[in-house]
Amino acid sequence: MNRVGIVGVGQGKFGRRADACLRELAFETVRDCLEDARVPLEEVDSMVVGVASDEFAFSIQPSAQIVDYLGFHPKPSFRVEGACASGSVALRTGWMAIASGLADLVLVLGAEKMTEISTPTATEIMGKGGDSIWEYPFGLTFPGYYALIARAHMAKYGTTEEQLARVAVKNHHYGAMNPWAHLQKEITVDEVLGSFVVADPLKLYDCCLISDGAAAVLLASEELAGEVAENPIWIAGMGLGTDTLALTGRGELTTLAGTVHAAKQAYGIAEITPRDVDVAVVHDCFTIAEIIAYEDLGFCDRGEGGRLIQEGKTYLGGDIPVNLDGGLKSKGHPVGATGVSMAVEITKQLRGEAEPGRQVQGAKIGLSHNVGGSGQHVAVHIYRRED
Amino acid sequence: MNRVGIVGVGQGKFGRRADACLRELAFETVRDCLEDARVPLEEVDSMVVGVASDEFAFSIQPSAQIVDYLGFHPKPSFRVEGACASGSVALRTGWMAIASGLADLVLVLGAEKMTEISTPTATEIMGKGGDSIWEYPFGLTFPGYYALIARAHMAKYGTTEEQLARVAVKNHHYGAMNPWAHLQKEITVDEVLGSFVVADPLKLYDCCLISDGAAAVLLASEELAGEVAENPIWIAGMGLGTDTLALTGRGELTTLAGTVHAAKQAYGIAEITPRDVDVAVVHDCFTIAEIIAYEDLGFCDRGEGGRLIQEGKTYLGGDIPVNLDGGLKSKGHPVGATGVSMAVEITKQLRGEAEPGRQVQGAKIGLSHNVGGSGQHVAVHIYRRED
Repeated sequence: MNRVGIVGVGQGKFGRRADACLRELAFETVRDCLEDARVPLEEVDSMVVGVASDEFAFSIQPSAQIVDYLGFHPKPSFRVEGACASGSVALRTGWMAIASGLADLVLVLGAEKMTEISTPTATEIMGKGGDSIWEYPFGLTFPGYYALIARAHMAKYGTTEEQLARVAVKNHHYGAMNPWAHLQKEITVDEVLGSFVVADPLKLYDCCLISDGAAAVLLASEELAGEVAENPIWIAGMGLGTDTLALTGRGELTTLAGTVHAAKQAYGIAEITPRDVDVAVVHDCFTIAEIIAYEDLGFCDRGEGGRLIQEGKTYLGGDIPVNLDGGLKSKGHPVGATGVSMAVEITKQLRGEAEPGRQVQGAKIGLSHNVGGSGQHVAVHIYRRED
Repeated sequence: MNRVGIVGVGQGKFGRRADACLRELAFETVRDCLEDARVPLEEVDSMVVGVASDEFAFSIQPSAQIVDYLGFHPKPSFRVEGACASGSVALRTGWMAIASGLADLVLVLGAEKMTEISTPTATEIMGKGGDSIWEYPFGLTFPGYYALIARAHMAKYGTTEEQLARVAVKNHHYGAMNPWAHLQKEITVDEVLGSFVVADPLKLYDCCLISDGAAAVLLASEELAGEVAENPIWIAGMGLGTDTLALTGRGELTTLAGTVHAAKQAYGIAEITPRDVDVAVVHDCFTIAEIIAYEDLGFCDRGEGGRLIQEGKTYLGGDIPVNLDGGLKSKGHPVGATGVSMAVEITKQLRGEAEPGRQVQGAKIGLSHNVGGSGQHVAVHIYRRED
């Protein structure tokens, strides 16, 4: 397969961005990305845009809003969607555009503006990522889905609420050092355990944030990447997996089949094992999701995810540092942006440009893991620095 | 670039399908497509799904609904969106998946279920494909957009309401022979001119239908295509163009810049001229759109589109037969399905399998043209039979 490199990244501030609408969020991050790459927009061949929901954008073609504001006409652009994995699906599609020979420089953008509506309404819209015939109408939304998953994991493996809390504590610890994070504050295990119950056993601090934000990466063909960037970060492996829409359709709640499938593909293409990964970002929409990701990605044995965080092995300096950008939990989760923001974070880590206190020294191989819905779409990407 | 062929097609009945929900519409067309290709679902590597709107699907990940019902797990699938061009964008993305080397057999599906809500509500949802800050809130929906475009074309080139009506008459003539069409009835110029005004100068019969429907094509790599099909239809050219979201941002209303850009790319890749096209399907969401497509695709000179239909040159036997399947006007326009349905129609024409009375004898080169919104996304594909 043809090689594709990341030659520029842009990351806007995640948060309650009352100062910017969707198109403005996109603009600032595209500007930063192109400045980073030192490439003018005119040289870009095409764009792929990840936006998860029409309703947040008040549009049935949200990418057209964004592309219009950027003035990127009449070149090709379109939107891809894989719920909360939309950004990673956009990255994958951008890779395909280049590897197929259709383009040499592709701008991949993820964006979402979620805070213009109330949190309950946003939760309802997100809830329609579940089965809108058989589950959602009965009141099940995402905190409920992941609460069921957490309960199953606790019952089967003895995972504890304290272990869940430790995921939040770690991610807030690193988010506090990330200037782009929505919440930049440390929290304690007691604060997590004492926060109000959203969907038992998940409490407020077990849940990620509803945020506005955007992120962008510029992809280049092998030939152009060498010209544009001194140290392009190569996309070395890719995987995409899926699972049933309804949780009731699954034989097992303690694993995401989509992650297992996507990881196997990605490791295979990159020709590495989980042990080779120096730094990872995983989809911690709820704390239980990070613990299950450890297991599904092969960072530990099945059922050992709770112990991995308890022993601090996913902190900087541990076996496999995870979510040193704060994760969805603290950085925020503007759904369409999240997957692209993961690519930005790994690129920064592999370039050695993360902020002090959260940089993995000499990292050469990174991994991102992005889940749509409760596992209906799961994308895994592996990134490599070659110098 | 690697070659990609169409080795199977499936086309469900378009119409007011009270008998089937979105996932059932998708199922029946996928079943027909795989039967046509004589390939079991298990052999398919991945799926790309074109669905235009969350709101019609009551979901923020409509492709997950469909894929779940097909049981296509845990292999890769995701959704692409380019408003009413979503189906063609899905075809383009499926092509990329194969040409990039990521897959050998890709199922491309387009589907939309639009009639569960009232026509005014559907028109409102569609209206959000326009600029939801600067135009839609002031009451402008698609009939209005295209009425403005029609008025501009009439003022500049002397195009007449009768010429617009003749597009509808032609497309109903052929739709009456297409068993998959939503409306299978002939109409007259007088009936069109006498139908009620929707947005002056567009009358009821100038407007396409709101329909339910799905369509599917199976794409294969060059190696596999030869094994699977006796006569694969090759995707010989592709183009995707875009334009401003707001009509107020355009210098000229009588042309779609996205079509001109997409056509130039597609003709260039296929190394053909408009004169080489034996049969075309174009995006006639409103009759004026077909007339402008004639001009933008190079089937006639600028301003001559009205005369082209008046002289009957886009009928079977004319210079360039257009919309022999009835077009959006008579076949129907379940938005996400439309682009894929166009690929199905051209494949049937090039295989010589269209119904009597609407088959172009010996057709070797076909073209499809699919517009999203009022030109924000335009996809052109060129297809070739090689025997």
